[in-house]
Amino acid sequence: MKQGSVGIVETKNHKINRKIKLESGKKFGPINISYETYGNLNEEKTNAILICHPLTADAHAAGYHPGDTKPGWWDNMIGPGKTFDTEKYYIICSNVLGGCKGTTGPPSTNPETGKPYGTDFPVVTIKDMVKVQKKLTENLGIKKLLAVAGGSLGGMQALQWTVTYPNKVKYCIPIATTAKSSPQQIAFNEVGRRAIMSDPNWNNGNYYNKKPPKNGLALARMVGHITYLSDESMKKKFGRKLRNKKEFTYDFDINFEVESYLKYKGKTFVERFDANSYLYLTRAVDYFDLTNGENELTNAFKNVKTKFLVIAITSDWLYPPYQSKEIVRALEANDIEVSYSELRSTYGHDAFLLEPGQMKHLITSFLRKITVNDVMEETTPIINKKTSIKQASKTMMKNNSTHLPVITQNGKIAGIITAWDIAKAVSEDLKELEDVMTNNVVTANPNESIRSVINKIKKHNISALPVVDKKQKVIGTISSDVISQLITKDTPTPETDNQTNL
Amino acid sequence: MKQGSVGIVETKNHKINRKIKLESGKKFGPINISYETYGNLNEEKTNAILICHPLTADAHAAGYHPGDTKPGWWDNMIGPGKTFDTEKYYIICSNVLGGCKGTTGPPSTNPETGKPYGTDFPVVTIKDMVKVQKKLTENLGIKKLLAVAGGSLGGMQALQWTVTYPNKVKYCIPIATTAKSSPQQIAFNEVGRRAIMSDPNWNNGNYYNKKPPKNGLALARMVGHITYLSDESMKKKFGRKLRNKKEFTYDFDINFEVESYLKYKGKTFVERFDANSYLYLTRAVDYFDLTNGENELTNAFKNVKTKFLVIAITSDWLYPPYQSKEIVRALEANDIEVSYSELRSTYGHDAFLLEPGQMKHLITSFLRKITVNDVMEETTPIINKKTSIKQASKTMMKNNSTHLPVITQNGKIAGIITAWDIAKAVSEDLKELEDVMTNNVVTANPNESIRSVINKIKKHNISALPVVDKKQKVIGTISSDVISQLITKDTPTPETDNQTNL
Repeated sequence: MKQGSVGIVETKNHKINRKIKLESGKKFGPINISYETYGNLNEEKTNAILICHPLTADAHAAGYHPGDTKPGWWDNMIGPGKTFDTEKYYIICSNVLGGCKGTTGPPSTNPETGKPYGTDFPVVTIKDMVKVQKKLTENLGIKKLLAVAGGSLGGMQALQWTVTYPNKVKYCIPIATTAKSSPQQIAFNEVGRRAIMSDPNWNNGNYYNKKPPKNGLALARMVGHITYLSDESMKKKFGRKLRNKKEFTYDFDINFEVESYLKYKGKTFVERFDANSYLYLTRAVDYFDLTNGENELTNAFKNVKTKFLVIAITSDWLYPPYQSKEIVRALEANDIEVSYSELRSTYGHDAFLLEPGQMKHLITSFLRKITVNDVMEETTPIINKKTSIKQASKTMMKNNSTHLPVITQNGKIAGIITAWDIAKAVSEDLKELEDVMTNNVVTANPNESIRSVINKIKKHNISALPVVDKKQKVIGTISSDVISQLITKDTPTPETDNQTNL
Repeated sequence: MKQGSVGIVETKNHKINRKIKLESGKKFGPINISYETYGNLNEEKTNAILICHPLTADAHAAGYHPGDTKPGWWDNMIGPGKTFDTEKYYIICSNVLGGCKGTTGPPSTNPETGKPYGTDFPVVTIKDMVKVQKKLTENLGIKKLLAVAGGSLGGMQALQWTVTYPNKVKYCIPIATTAKSSPQQIAFNEVGRRAIMSDPNWNNGNYYNKKPPKNGLALARMVGHITYLSDESMKKKFGRKLRNKKEFTYDFDINFEVESYLKYKGKTFVERFDANSYLYLTRAVDYFDLTNGENELTNAFKNVKTKFLVIAITSDWLYPPYQSKEIVRALEANDIEVSYSELRSTYGHDAFLLEPGQMKHLITSFLRKITVNDVMEETTPIINKKTSIKQASKTMMKNNSTHLPVITQNGKIAGIITAWDIAKAVSEDLKELEDVMTNNVVTANPNESIRSVINKIKKHNISALPVVDKKQKVIGTISSDVISQLITKDTPTPETDNQTNL
């Protein structure tokens, strides 16, 4: 199967002009949201997947900006034929609130002063970030996300979506994350922040026309980087290899490869990231606690209606698998459908960025479970069988629909009428719907698999099916367009033993 | 059994006036060594145990300095009736070379300039630290240490002793340590160093009459502290508890208990430690590699003659148990006697400072295996049975010894002669040794347990035994003084299942 690139992409912007109420109680706005989209939103707007980015990434998840040689940060996961297949799904990725990559954050201009916000920017939470993403998806006309997925901070956003908006997400894929930040995670964040705030150039956050606190930010990044790798991966990558020398130099210059790597990572990071944003985003991570301090995760998920695939990484010591298992247990205690998978990798926390093969297997296996209910059009126009031919044709025109399910007085499916049937009525001068509609209609049920529906469509050579519940009441329609887009074209992969239902 | 304090102690100093050659090739001196001792060195000088301190500790391992309310850093392990029982052993602890607690280091005055060395201090290694300790033990008249023990950096020193001076250490107890620093360990050290060196007050190490780089050093300590604790212990200790508040303050001030703890630890550390010393000591840790870059640990131990107890801590992720097991395997490959124990604790790396109960059990079980060979006097004066009474009495006077083993022409034990026997010869006017010596002498063998020897001493009411090998050749003597001091007075504890021989 082709694994292609989404090609040249551009970052778009959506502006929320009204202030929003933050979790802190403050009101804040206007807010610009930088985002990118890949693939096409289907007519029913049911194939949208929101990708939430980790700490220091951005809206540019896939493809290339003009002139760039490096693609977006999750390009190995997003594209034609890839895990998040842009031939099937409409992928959205937006920069988080408080970031420094286009969405309003500390380096953005405060319209009230004409200067960068700096530390006048309000402290925001993951819930606030999600609230802003929700505004974006509404603006894109999406009433319900097919899925929300992300690793690390992205996983926290994904979890928060299902809690804040229980009816707005069908599938959730939190990866290498936690339901609440642990004291160890807070401690590492705090070290990073103190490094920045101890740098004299930080200057209480007012450095935008001066020298930025590069040393502090580089230090914060160095600490972060150690936590993203594993002991084992560092041994494989660096061992005790010396950097451009054969012997120790008995000084404090770079002696070891690992020192050189950290220095390089610190140096390149400060070129692309804002120190104040680092403070705000790590603070949002610290504050993240789905239990709201109650310590009882089960309660947090009590209204959740999403289906979950929780992925942990075996060698991740920053967000160890036990934290993912806590999420799984709390979901199960609420009878929420959840699969748990451990990605086997020595890469540590970063593995979600570095193991596209395993990720693809785990996620596509999960998304293959998408049912008719997940993608059907719920707002289908339905007509009563007593409706006149003329009224039926008017409804058809109004809704730009070539198929209308026909129901009885008590709401049960009676048949289907197409534009072809209308034409036939006109030609034969028939006035009643019942004279021309198809009575023996092929229907789908909401829990039916997409694969089963496509077989019906092929067999009967039809382009849409009414979806009916157990009482034969019409609850929506599903078109062959939606289905053929979603159906996996490759052979189904059997689930392997590293995907386990806890 | 009484577990007492060694009481009021004082730090002593030994000065090495001649320069020593460092591993880097540089010559350096003079060197002052600060050290403390607890307990009494026996006459044979066979009961000395050297305690090597971890990164930021000092020579003050036990007891109290006048006026202090807090005891030395390993007081829960050293004292009458404690693990390192000062009623049996003579405990020595010295501050490491490059430190800032009395032994010559970066803050010491360079006699050539009259100013502190700062970064003119040469980069030293663990091997250099051990070389200096060796000079101290020589000065104390100790030819062979009964044991050398230490955790973390202290464990590295202990290991290095056995490699550099294979005939000078009988028992080695490396705890929570490694045979070579891993890239992850180097990385954390490097972050600490960069934090210090990025602090403008560091000023290339010249800050002794100015403001010291407190922010940088505090940051280094904060990072260090996280690595000394475990995820689990941090959860138990702090959880997500807020510090003196009920709600988030939505800012970058201290919100969480864990932040307050780190801040406090950083703040108190800078009051007691020198930033340059931190650079030097962490660099020594980085450079530590018993394989000398050859990656084959087995070769490193090929001349070692010490017996080992290697202790790892289950929850230590900075020096994980696998690193201790590597040491054990390499020792075993050289047929060196080694026991391996895992201290079961959730405290993380710091557990060696916090679990005196388990430590006592593990270490006393090990030290109880001390044999006659470990503590006998090897340089015993021996006389031939053809020696005259007069000559025998002269030898006795010269060596200040009341017992002399008597041997045959071919070196085998023939008897023992005491001052009492000499007096008898004088009174009866006997000229030949054979006329007065005891022929039916009670002997000990070198591999005999101390407990067995004390039984002989009690049974025969004697004060010293010749130690003979399998061929009945005299190889030393052992006195009741030494033995009664070493014998454990409490009931022997059975070894439990957490002490395993790998």
